[in-house]
Amino acid sequence: MSVKLASIRIRAEEHRARGDVLRAELERLRLNGAVLFDRDYVLYYSGFAFVPTERPMAFVINAIGERRLFVPRLELEHAQANAAVDSVDHYIEYPDDPHPMQGLKATLTSMGVTGKIGCDVDGYPWVFGYRGPKLSELMESEVTPLRAFVEDRMMIKSPAELELIRESVRWGNLAHMLLQRYTLVGATETEVGMQATDEATLAMLDAIGPIYRSNDPFSEGASAGYRGQIGRNGAIPHSLAGNLTFQPGDVLVTGAGAPVWGYNSELERTMVIGEASKDQRRYFDHMLAVQDLAMAAIEPGKRCADVDRAVRQYCQDQDLQPYWKHHSGHAIGIRYHEGPFLDIGDQTTIRPGMVFTVEPGLYVPELGGFRHSDTVAVTEEGIEVMTYYPRDLPSLTLPG
Amino acid sequence: MSVKLASIRIRAEEHRARGDVLRAELERLRLNGAVLFDRDYVLYYSGFAFVPTERPMAFVINAIGERRLFVPRLELEHAQANAAVDSVDHYIEYPDDPHPMQGLKATLTSMGVTGKIGCDVDGYPWVFGYRGPKLSELMESEVTPLRAFVEDRMMIKSPAELELIRESVRWGNLAHMLLQRYTLVGATETEVGMQATDEATLAMLDAIGPIYRSNDPFSEGASAGYRGQIGRNGAIPHSLAGNLTFQPGDVLVTGAGAPVWGYNSELERTMVIGEASKDQRRYFDHMLAVQDLAMAAIEPGKRCADVDRAVRQYCQDQDLQPYWKHHSGHAIGIRYHEGPFLDIGDQTTIRPGMVFTVEPGLYVPELGGFRHSDTVAVTEEGIEVMTYYPRDLPSLTLPG
Repeated sequence: MSVKLASIRIRAEEHRARGDVLRAELERLRLNGAVLFDRDYVLYYSGFAFVPTERPMAFVINAIGERRLFVPRLELEHAQANAAVDSVDHYIEYPDDPHPMQGLKATLTSMGVTGKIGCDVDGYPWVFGYRGPKLSELMESEVTPLRAFVEDRMMIKSPAELELIRESVRWGNLAHMLLQRYTLVGATETEVGMQATDEATLAMLDAIGPIYRSNDPFSEGASAGYRGQIGRNGAIPHSLAGNLTFQPGDVLVTGAGAPVWGYNSELERTMVIGEASKDQRRYFDHMLAVQDLAMAAIEPGKRCADVDRAVRQYCQDQDLQPYWKHHSGHAIGIRYHEGPFLDIGDQTTIRPGMVFTVEPGLYVPELGGFRHSDTVAVTEEGIEVMTYYPRDLPSLTLPG
Repeated sequence: MSVKLASIRIRAEEHRARGDVLRAELERLRLNGAVLFDRDYVLYYSGFAFVPTERPMAFVINAIGERRLFVPRLELEHAQANAAVDSVDHYIEYPDDPHPMQGLKATLTSMGVTGKIGCDVDGYPWVFGYRGPKLSELMESEVTPLRAFVEDRMMIKSPAELELIRESVRWGNLAHMLLQRYTLVGATETEVGMQATDEATLAMLDAIGPIYRSNDPFSEGASAGYRGQIGRNGAIPHSLAGNLTFQPGDVLVTGAGAPVWGYNSELERTMVIGEASKDQRRYFDHMLAVQDLAMAAIEPGKRCADVDRAVRQYCQDQDLQPYWKHHSGHAIGIRYHEGPFLDIGDQTTIRPGMVFTVEPGLYVPELGGFRHSDTVAVTEEGIEVMTYYPRDLPSLTLPG
């Protein structure tokens, strides 16, 4: 009799299968192994999530497919309990004496990862004050970049990854629903964002808590907020703005999501406080039309560039170019932005299993930003729109 | 008559002065200019904070001291409004066609930043799916690494930077006070952390809101929480744990802080629920003694290694080595961890203006973690302990 416990995390077999694909690439390139330092790549190949600091960590695989994690003492038990690898090697501390890279050298040597080696980056990058040698210097090796290969694999999501993104959508939707409900004239964006974020997170933790991990160093649950995209300030996307108060007539741009075992989704909506003015309605309608058009343009076999070209063409035809500021979307997964991009410069062929945000935006000085973002998965036939929050203006009009 | 408005941000003159020091180094190295891609370096030299994505940005300075920011269209107005530079150049989008690096090449060429160039990293790193050429290839240049030089400058905090760290301490203290107050048996770490974080942030925004920016892409205010360091789980530092419920007898390790115009402080405390057991008291007392010892060892003119050596010696003398897991502290500033490190491998001389966390920890299997972290600034004579939260066991004992 088989008893399978409820679980939503990526299974060890899937991590191993990803490693097998990497091992085959090593064979093709006649490399003796690979070293990956990037936090997201370590998570992708081992399931181990950690807070990045000055202490280098690495996922190592050799030509016969043995996997090890290389971690500081601080992370040893944490890695042993969570990583789908054959073993965990550790060093004492950074910078210590000898330097941790001497420990990595010993690990690589014992695994036969010498001579021709693949890597994501030639040595742990100099982040958080870390300083150390290049991998090529350390091992007196010729290193071959594998970053593009790994990125190309991460682009195609497995059924289990899609399931985690759907779970993320669920809780981003709740957070957004609460954000909309609590947004009232006179309230501040911070208090409304907090209330929605807290309630959605607590609900999520009660609903899926025991089998949930965020696996994200900066977020422990669902969240929703405005990031300052309120009123005329909304004409500046990605601004790190202050704590604004909602006013009648404001155009708002939201953002919501939830990391689930490291996977993300994106939900953004344009809302207006009080009945939309003629101008607000005009840009809202254009935004909706161009998002529809972008979604319709995503098809397996087409190129990412085609989608963005259709969007730019619409903006040109409708005299909206002054309000255009960015490409039509980006892939999403373990990173909140990743490649490929829905951009005229990205010639990547769209394939089933890719997951994109679709979010062409219009930014009108003195009026505000107009952008919805939906998360869509590419299927054999077209797309599955994973987010399902209402998109129409009446549903997104708040009491004025 | 001079009217000086209230402000706590770093002034443009200070950003310019930092750039002047960098320009002098370029002269010394006979370089025609420098390109810095790192988000934190851009903030350090220009005051411009942004959310990092696939879109490269750079701070550029040439041999005669002209400064420019290179940003995507998306960030143009945002940069123009916030960056202390002479001008802002922009490109349309990433990857676009032509690639943004062609725009950077034009900017560098127009500034005379050709031939021998300094940089932090040889081209924008391949993060968030970004792909692009090395700077050396793009410019057919010889590039000189400047990362160590910049890191060495960032180590010494100016009076204005120290002031921002003190402001950060204030609000981290409030968040921690609330965290302690709301931590009760039966409550979950998430709800308590949220309540403390929210209330402290709202108080901070009301107190300093109009002249406050976090300038941190992941936090908009004060925060406090446990990061899963509760009960026996606390024996694993830096774990990304689930949502635990407080139990009588738990040892807790907290964390609190607040980004203020990009600057951070760190406050961590060990607390116990109910009267401490003999074992808990023993490790708490050792932790306090070794933190005292570490603080006393920080003196201008000594080396960082000396501090950590004293800590390790104490652990050896007291048979505490099995419970040791990490070095005694790290510098802090724009990054939540940065160099130099209070570590036996770090031979950096301690100098006035450096700011360190002091946080030797003991991790006892089945019992929990014992760690206080205080933020201290090095003065001409010794140290100023910037954090002032109670450190003694009675003050940190919660109702059981």
